[in-house]
Amino acid sequence: MWLGWSTGRRLLAFRRRLQLCRNVSLPNSARGAVEDGVLSKFRSICGEDGISLGEAVREQHGKDESVHRCCPPDVVVFPRCVEEVSALARVCHKHNLPIIPFGTGTGLEGGVGAVQGGVCFSLRNMDQILDLHPEDFDVTVEPGVTRKSLNAYLRDTGLWFPVDPGADASLCGMAATSASGTNAVRYGTMRENVMNLEVVLADGTIIHTAGKGRRPRKTSAGYNLTNLFVGSEGTLGIITKATLRLYGIPEAMVSAVCSFPSVQTAVDSTVQILQAGVPIARIEFLDDVMIDACNRFSSLSYAVTPTLFLEFHGSERSLEEQVNTAEEITQSNGGSDFQWARDAETRSRLWKARHDAWYAAQALRPGCKAYSTDVCVPLSRLPQIIMETKEDLIESRLTGPIAGHVGDGNFHCLMVVDPSDPDELHRVHLFTERLARRALAMDGTCTGEHGVGLGKRALLREELGPQAIQVMQGLKDALDPKQLLNPEKILQHKEQ
Amino acid sequence: MWLGWSTGRRLLAFRRRLQLCRNVSLPNSARGAVEDGVLSKFRSICGEDGISLGEAVREQHGKDESVHRCCPPDVVVFPRCVEEVSALARVCHKHNLPIIPFGTGTGLEGGVGAVQGGVCFSLRNMDQILDLHPEDFDVTVEPGVTRKSLNAYLRDTGLWFPVDPGADASLCGMAATSASGTNAVRYGTMRENVMNLEVVLADGTIIHTAGKGRRPRKTSAGYNLTNLFVGSEGTLGIITKATLRLYGIPEAMVSAVCSFPSVQTAVDSTVQILQAGVPIARIEFLDDVMIDACNRFSSLSYAVTPTLFLEFHGSERSLEEQVNTAEEITQSNGGSDFQWARDAETRSRLWKARHDAWYAAQALRPGCKAYSTDVCVPLSRLPQIIMETKEDLIESRLTGPIAGHVGDGNFHCLMVVDPSDPDELHRVHLFTERLARRALAMDGTCTGEHGVGLGKRALLREELGPQAIQVMQGLKDALDPKQLLNPEKILQHKEQ
Repeated sequence: MWLGWSTGRRLLAFRRRLQLCRNVSLPNSARGAVEDGVLSKFRSICGEDGISLGEAVREQHGKDESVHRCCPPDVVVFPRCVEEVSALARVCHKHNLPIIPFGTGTGLEGGVGAVQGGVCFSLRNMDQILDLHPEDFDVTVEPGVTRKSLNAYLRDTGLWFPVDPGADASLCGMAATSASGTNAVRYGTMRENVMNLEVVLADGTIIHTAGKGRRPRKTSAGYNLTNLFVGSEGTLGIITKATLRLYGIPEAMVSAVCSFPSVQTAVDSTVQILQAGVPIARIEFLDDVMIDACNRFSSLSYAVTPTLFLEFHGSERSLEEQVNTAEEITQSNGGSDFQWARDAETRSRLWKARHDAWYAAQALRPGCKAYSTDVCVPLSRLPQIIMETKEDLIESRLTGPIAGHVGDGNFHCLMVVDPSDPDELHRVHLFTERLARRALAMDGTCTGEHGVGLGKRALLREELGPQAIQVMQGLKDALDPKQLLNPEKILQHKEQ
Repeated sequence: MWLGWSTGRRLLAFRRRLQLCRNVSLPNSARGAVEDGVLSKFRSICGEDGISLGEAVREQHGKDESVHRCCPPDVVVFPRCVEEVSALARVCHKHNLPIIPFGTGTGLEGGVGAVQGGVCFSLRNMDQILDLHPEDFDVTVEPGVTRKSLNAYLRDTGLWFPVDPGADASLCGMAATSASGTNAVRYGTMRENVMNLEVVLADGTIIHTAGKGRRPRKTSAGYNLTNLFVGSEGTLGIITKATLRLYGIPEAMVSAVCSFPSVQTAVDSTVQILQAGVPIARIEFLDDVMIDACNRFSSLSYAVTPTLFLEFHGSERSLEEQVNTAEEITQSNGGSDFQWARDAETRSRLWKARHDAWYAAQALRPGCKAYSTDVCVPLSRLPQIIMETKEDLIESRLTGPIAGHVGDGNFHCLMVVDPSDPDELHRVHLFTERLARRALAMDGTCTGEHGVGLGKRALLREELGPQAIQVMQGLKDALDPKQLLNPEKILQHKEQ
């Protein structure tokens, strides 16, 4: 049974987390460095331009947007097609070299760090949008395609892909992380919106999780391999194609902002709007600190109180009804009148402000680094956990505006940390662990959408228990017996 | 590479499929019979009443509602709690006895047959509804709880569980089969509606796929174990609890029937209704043969032409808009005026007629047996595959009314077969294989919701390719190295 860490070990672990990098703290005895002969093979597969040993390029591929320290790979390769990915993987497999898939590096839990060195597979050169079937609401994309570029491509078709984690992440990276974001309350997460994946396994084998080219809207044909790879964070295979479910662009959309006297009334409104069956597209909570930061950063002037950003999608008529029901509920909870964003430009400005929350938080303390926590609890537990978390922030003397996809029970503290202050770092670490454990104590999860990466491996074990972790390790061993794929992520192999 | 079967082998395989049973065709050398000492252990775990060796009970647990021949287990056990399931599994594991989980026996692909003998775990005595959280829209059920009993229990809460495969199946059995049915077009399948599972593994270990008691609406915490067990058909573990997502009962519901001049116009209407963004709850297609059978069986008088049964859920106002849009579309395609079912009783009669399609089909040829095919294709391919299938039925001189969840691209031919006519059986077999391959050639799947069981193992291989099958086998080996859990289902172990 997992007994928890002592405080000393916790501090050590957090320091290690920030430092976790082959060059600093981990022996590399089991892995060979990348030899010249191997580099020649890489060049013969993806050309002179398809491989980089330059320090800047390696540094750039050794980190994401989290506070996890940069762990550069030994070499970065840039395959142009699945056959090249497969050939490169075969070489790595033969030479026992770690393989780290890289999309856009917008992850938040250290998922791309080369903690044992090895070969980073940057998939940016595979950026084709393939096989759009507008009449079937599906499309297939290569791993270099980002969500914004897909939606730009779709603009004239009347279709869109709604999963929106904020960052312009690659869609296959979003599949790997089981990403979601602001629209998930209505349209689901990547789990519900990936229909098929092409995956290169550790030994170079190419599979299609639902069969090559298949795209039925539902299936019960064998084990759900698609959803085994969605959320596997590059530890089970390299995703080289994703077939995605598309949606018709709604006839009408309208956004609104509503201020509340308290966290409780804002969250109560959320729960009641969902209970009333309003098919709300987005319902985002920002606490007073967050809205203040957004006001400053995006030159807005919303009341500095707990706030909901809402968005409604539908026909003109159904919109009216949705909005009326929602407004009735918010007003009965003491919410302000809705401030409207009806035209595309105003709506876009509003959501840009929400997506810029990260930068707005950072701007509260120039020179500091933002670190986003991520927990998710059942809806009814939201007011309590947010209130307790705000008290904890004050007691811990920390800056952490809160923003969240409250329709899913998912929220983030955007911690703004001085990386040169070890005491503050320690307090942040203790705070984030308390937050995660608070979520666990309320039947929730330590991560609703950011994934486990390096940062949440110990918490994952607490969340699932040793038996479920052992099952996960068994799946990992079955698919990647040499433990080459994105080592040390999700599971701490053989260290438990 | 899979090269397909010759006709001779096909016939052999189909005969084998109908006969597949330890007593008839498979050696049992690897498995010991259930010895007295083992039976004593079973009795000490679940009491004298918790075990049955009676022929009638064993027969009853050796078959589902398909044409697969009855394969009775050696013994049936009736555990009362997860601890008993775990203890029984440990005994089976020690003595290398096959374990076959049994819910209600309403499956359609031979999933419960004890093809290698062994121990059937009937879960009917575990029938408690636990941990209802109305404010969070979730509930946890034991494996003996059926969907109808859950919805009866929920009646006063304003909530319901919408996944509806027709039969009053157990909810954990529905999870095991990845079931769906008429409401999936709006509410999703079991894949989207199971939040957590308690599972007993082959060696008796108890796991919770998302952590014990956890019920966040979304998570990205590690591999998606929940959706690995959903659809695993008892081959990876015994599901002993399921936490399910609930929905608010809509303010208003209305059903309608609409007749069409052709299959094409009925299916075109379906596609256009979905494209228009109507959040339709049910849209069911019945071909002329099917509606004729339903008319006779349920004393109805609908026009004997391709027909849609539709259902709309929402507020009174949104319903009006949904209905108007849908009716405009159906009329532009030459559909009849809607025939309404507004009150609960009329709606219930209408959907009972749809759910009784199976018996209506059987009644077309008294003394014959119904056999339901199950394919799913992208929406745009539906008219072509249904037309080709109807022609094939005529050419093959077979009775096979067609009914389907066309909003998902999923449909069934309800074959009515004389089991004593080997020539007809052979023609049915060739027809169903052609139908499945037609679906595969149109980017579809050989099973949208019935699962693989015994019946579709060869087709599954064609659908996914040998590499993906090998990955599935690797997962099976990792979780059930002794191959004790529901042997021979989904994968044909070591026989490929």
